[in-house]
Amino acid sequence: MKILKHTLFSLLATMHVLSAFAQTKQPNIIVILADDLGYGDLSSYGHPTIRTPNLDKMAAEGMRFTQFYAAAAVCTPSRAALLTGRLAFRSGVYGKGDVFRQNSASGLPLNEVTMAELLKSKGYVTGMVGKWHLGHLPEFLPTRQGFGYWFGVPYSNDMGKVFTTHKDGAYGIPPGPRPNAPALPLYRNETVIEEEPDQRYLTKRYTEEVIEFIKKRQDKPFFMYYASNFPHTPLYASPQFEGKSKRGLYGDVVAELDWSVGQILKTLKELKLDQNTLVVFTSDNGPWLPMQDHAGSAGLLYEGKNSTYEGGMRVPAIAWWPGKIKPNVVSEEIISMMDLLPTFASIAGVPLPKDKELDGMNISDVLYGKKTQVRNMIHYYINENLYAVRKGPWKAHFTTHASYSQEAPLGHETPLLFNITEDPSEKYDIANSYPDVVEELTKEYNKMKSIAHVPSEIEKVIPSSQ
Amino acid sequence: MKILKHTLFSLLATMHVLSAFAQTKQPNIIVILADDLGYGDLSSYGHPTIRTPNLDKMAAEGMRFTQFYAAAAVCTPSRAALLTGRLAFRSGVYGKGDVFRQNSASGLPLNEVTMAELLKSKGYVTGMVGKWHLGHLPEFLPTRQGFGYWFGVPYSNDMGKVFTTHKDGAYGIPPGPRPNAPALPLYRNETVIEEEPDQRYLTKRYTEEVIEFIKKRQDKPFFMYYASNFPHTPLYASPQFEGKSKRGLYGDVVAELDWSVGQILKTLKELKLDQNTLVVFTSDNGPWLPMQDHAGSAGLLYEGKNSTYEGGMRVPAIAWWPGKIKPNVVSEEIISMMDLLPTFASIAGVPLPKDKELDGMNISDVLYGKKTQVRNMIHYYINENLYAVRKGPWKAHFTTHASYSQEAPLGHETPLLFNITEDPSEKYDIANSYPDVVEELTKEYNKMKSIAHVPSEIEKVIPSSQ
Repeated sequence: MKILKHTLFSLLATMHVLSAFAQTKQPNIIVILADDLGYGDLSSYGHPTIRTPNLDKMAAEGMRFTQFYAAAAVCTPSRAALLTGRLAFRSGVYGKGDVFRQNSASGLPLNEVTMAELLKSKGYVTGMVGKWHLGHLPEFLPTRQGFGYWFGVPYSNDMGKVFTTHKDGAYGIPPGPRPNAPALPLYRNETVIEEEPDQRYLTKRYTEEVIEFIKKRQDKPFFMYYASNFPHTPLYASPQFEGKSKRGLYGDVVAELDWSVGQILKTLKELKLDQNTLVVFTSDNGPWLPMQDHAGSAGLLYEGKNSTYEGGMRVPAIAWWPGKIKPNVVSEEIISMMDLLPTFASIAGVPLPKDKELDGMNISDVLYGKKTQVRNMIHYYINENLYAVRKGPWKAHFTTHASYSQEAPLGHETPLLFNITEDPSEKYDIANSYPDVVEELTKEYNKMKSIAHVPSEIEKVIPSSQ
Repeated sequence: MKILKHTLFSLLATMHVLSAFAQTKQPNIIVILADDLGYGDLSSYGHPTIRTPNLDKMAAEGMRFTQFYAAAAVCTPSRAALLTGRLAFRSGVYGKGDVFRQNSASGLPLNEVTMAELLKSKGYVTGMVGKWHLGHLPEFLPTRQGFGYWFGVPYSNDMGKVFTTHKDGAYGIPPGPRPNAPALPLYRNETVIEEEPDQRYLTKRYTEEVIEFIKKRQDKPFFMYYASNFPHTPLYASPQFEGKSKRGLYGDVVAELDWSVGQILKTLKELKLDQNTLVVFTSDNGPWLPMQDHAGSAGLLYEGKNSTYEGGMRVPAIAWWPGKIKPNVVSEEIISMMDLLPTFASIAGVPLPKDKELDGMNISDVLYGKKTQVRNMIHYYINENLYAVRKGPWKAHFTTHASYSQEAPLGHETPLLFNITEDPSEKYDIANSYPDVVEELTKEYNKMKSIAHVPSEIEKVIPSSQ
């Protein structure tokens, strides 16, 4: 009996060790998503007066991407695509109005599989801090979409009583408070814990929450989705950062976000989790240019948010995983934000959802330096409408539209054709010189156009009581 | 007698050691000047598809400047100002035609004091490799301006039988050879050793010459001015680089220039001269935008070469001096290329020329990390005409002109005012909100306008024989 007990005990101990081993083999994953940060807004992406020492160091210790794409040119569809690895027309997260608003009756459909759900199914502890924007009604909150924990706000930080901090107003809307607007709610899980939180302290509070989450969950692999509300307007920095950047308030806000990332990476190093944690930093779309000096910069890229020119969708992106991702690599690989879901699934050893058509591709071999080309196509949508297609260096615009303009989108019988590796600013239309390329991209365009679209969720709104 | 001999020998030995010590205390200085390289053209300045690993490494090991200015928006006056530390109207190196041409009757006046002359007076061995462009007649060649040695061409690489390699032509001029044009001469010292050298090998040959010069001169401090002809058009890369960059031929050419810099730094390290050599890399002016995809990019800055918007004069700049300049520093200090002369003079312990009004300032304390502000003003000239003035974050445009346009320059009764640290792309004129700043900058403008100008040297041409 004693021997049996001893044997059983040994067996249990071995199983425990094995299980712990299996668990520590699964890396932690953190996605940090900035809001409206432009391609040119980090020091390492060439900004002259925004200082981002922590993100630059993250790039020097990891992989910095120069052709990384958000999956949409505005917030809500981009986030849906990030979390599901699918284009907006497949999930229904598109439509007039562009994003979910305070009167939305829907959200990201619950039958979609988020990366949180996927990783949770493999034993990950999942958490989210920050901006959701995929449905504010209780049944659509992050806690119903795979996140075991959430601290944040349900939509953009301008969807409360303050629209803009811009001293001269911006985008035709006067600055200052909007007393009759609904208050911006701050949630912990499914409970509103504050209304109109002081946004100056939002980055600090988010950072503390992320660090707290990391510290608590050391015994199990974790997935953290930290979606900052900034540098989306209205801009707010804490007193420690306000007035410090030569770039003005926008620079202060980016500097604080940079600090926030630095604190997180520092925590991982202190807890010796750095060698077992993949951190990806990126932005949901390009800079919101009508906000003038409260908007970021797409650098040499043309246009910004809400445009299918490169400035609208190509975003800064850095992947960091000491020991696994080589330091100081600049990758010119074409990557879509939708690639993160299948990549995380591969890294965590989770099978992909069976009944969902995915647009993302597993780029783990790019991260490991084993491959330099996985994807060669990007599709550029405004809502359900395909505007442009990239294949390799070639990009054809079938429809163009000046973002935030009242003019109607302009269809092109012969698309505009740019070689965007040679002409990243999309200045020189060379369609006439490359009819074969135009034909090839037109075929791809027609193929994508022929796929059935599910109905819009964004257009489902709560009828007005007036 | 034996004792005396011994004493004398000891004395001589001591003197030799002291002299060697004094010499090794004076650092070597290398200036590497690119031609028409834009602010956004290096990977470390945010270009997505131009790879510059050597320059990025140089930046990681040194100081990268984000507000470094060429002293003029075009080649010749910029080079004159670099070498003399003086604005063009003081030396006369300005005028209609913008640059010295094949029919120029003049050059940089011989009574100007170049940095080569200054350093030579303190025992430096001086050499130049590459493009001169400060007078092609024998009496104006580099060998008459303080350089003990020269290997290169007297003006731009398009001033021979080939204007552009651009497949579609560019700038309204058809591509291909111009058989009736004078041949581009390649000089060694004052002798033409080749006509129309194969430009594909120019970067390789220049690199070899620079390395040869460094290897030969190890016993004395040296000054090397390496002025590449590239990426000025016509673009040529060696077979090793041609067709390799995703950015096309322009990217190939920049990649080869990057390789060239890497070879030079490698040589310094191999010879253990790196701790005693200051290397500065920069560009003579912004990108020559009319050359289309054969032109570079100013990144987020507006306009290019021949413009007094930032894209015309703000250029990439990296300073490298292991042990003296801290690694991996990004400096937002406002620097002018004219600051190099007084800085080198200070570092080498040479007194400044007494009878010359200098526009450059000693920025050695910026390099050493002891000061973060030395200069707060920049003056932007087109020829002898002051167009704009920067003071701190403020820049007032008194005259603007679309570069390479047939339209007349536009004078502004109230200048355009930009806060260029907050609005680096010069998008938002805020003159109306800051009348005090406008007044202050107008005073500075009037002060500079009141200084007498010497006559133009560029307008002195050899009368046509026709």
